[in-house]
Amino acid sequence: MPYTHVEILPQLRNAGEKVQREFEQYACVRTCSRGEFIALEGDRCHFFHLVVSGSLRIYKGDEYGREITLYKVKPGESCILSAFCILNGGEFPANAMAEETTQVIEIPAIVFRDWLNRHEFWREYIFSRFSVHLSNIISRIESLVFRRMDERIAQFLVHSASGASNRVKLTHSDIARELGTAREVVSRILKNFEKARLIRLSRGNITIINQQGLFPQAGSRGR
Amino acid sequence: MPYTHVEILPQLRNAGEKVQREFEQYACVRTCSRGEFIALEGDRCHFFHLVVSGSLRIYKGDEYGREITLYKVKPGESCILSAFCILNGGEFPANAMAEETTQVIEIPAIVFRDWLNRHEFWREYIFSRFSVHLSNIISRIESLVFRRMDERIAQFLVHSASGASNRVKLTHSDIARELGTAREVVSRILKNFEKARLIRLSRGNITIINQQGLFPQAGSRGR
Repeated sequence: MPYTHVEILPQLRNAGEKVQREFEQYACVRTCSRGEFIALEGDRCHFFHLVVSGSLRIYKGDEYGREITLYKVKPGESCILSAFCILNGGEFPANAMAEETTQVIEIPAIVFRDWLNRHEFWREYIFSRFSVHLSNIISRIESLVFRRMDERIAQFLVHSASGASNRVKLTHSDIARELGTAREVVSRILKNFEKARLIRLSRGNITIINQQGLFPQAGSRGR
Repeated sequence: MPYTHVEILPQLRNAGEKVQREFEQYACVRTCSRGEFIALEGDRCHFFHLVVSGSLRIYKGDEYGREITLYKVKPGESCILSAFCILNGGEFPANAMAEETTQVIEIPAIVFRDWLNRHEFWREYIFSRFSVHLSNIISRIESLVFRRMDERIAQFLVHSASGASNRVKLTHSDIARELGTAREVVSRILKNFEKARLIRLSRGNITIINQQGLFPQAGSRGR
């Protein structure tokens, strides 16, 4: 096992040895392949999930095949929607798919609930995760309502660019799925950005050449 | 006092007399006038709020004066964003305004936290509220991404119509604020609905005359 539970969940450190042993007893590791679903919309949740390595994408889709990413779960993070489902006994309201080979720790629903009642460290951990997720989701709504699609794409490119290369290794379809729009819309806006010399497009790659230009000071907004 | 705490929070019934007395000791009632803010974006939360009568509107605005309602808090419901702020020590991420004369029970932040640690009924109540809110907010995102504005307005009209009269007593600006769009967009779409004999418009009133027609079976979607 290339990690310790305390590395994945540092909150365990102060919870005492007894709690750490309990965690080791109930937390099982599962490895998901790229593209594997750990939950589909409508599923019941029998486990709470914590990501050890890799990445889970939590998204919604409509009947026309369009998708929007709600959030991703990266190493050390947990899938808070599975917590909600366990707590309200309801159905998982989205899809959760491994974006690459992903290791998750599964904690059985009954243990999850029991810990909420018995362990303060666990309550604090879960509540703080809830808070982070809710505030992310509210930002998402804000951006959907108040930002035009070109502004949302510009923001997404800057957030997704890796380091000094300023390169984004995503296809137009990937970006459409992230932002809940059609590929054609993404392609049209990216072409406009290229014409304005803000980015350079090549096969499967987008290079940002003028980051400042992607965020014009003034600009009318609307939908 | 025209209500008992157990009426507002039925979960108290099974929590025992001692807990009920504790609730009476710490829960203070505050009356807000129509238009009064109980929290502004950026505020710290010193209280958790439970609505006794009236209605709170929780909304976000942008720098151009546009608004979108995130949710409303009706009698017997609580403002879950204030719980989040208390738990993560952060700022209130929206505005909370009384839509009419509104009575709220205020529970001090320190008591709120203490109860989460000590009272199972309180944890279950707060977690179940979190779940309901999160699933509402996810539906909101779904509707923003996958539904056209005319579909969203149609849905909002049907939800807002009062009983047998099928009448919606809201101005076009009210609807725009609810759905995060411009008044002009609402007026244009309502006029189209009127032309199609789906609704009848009069001063400050919208009457639905063909509810089925507001939900066409087929219809291309997009933004």
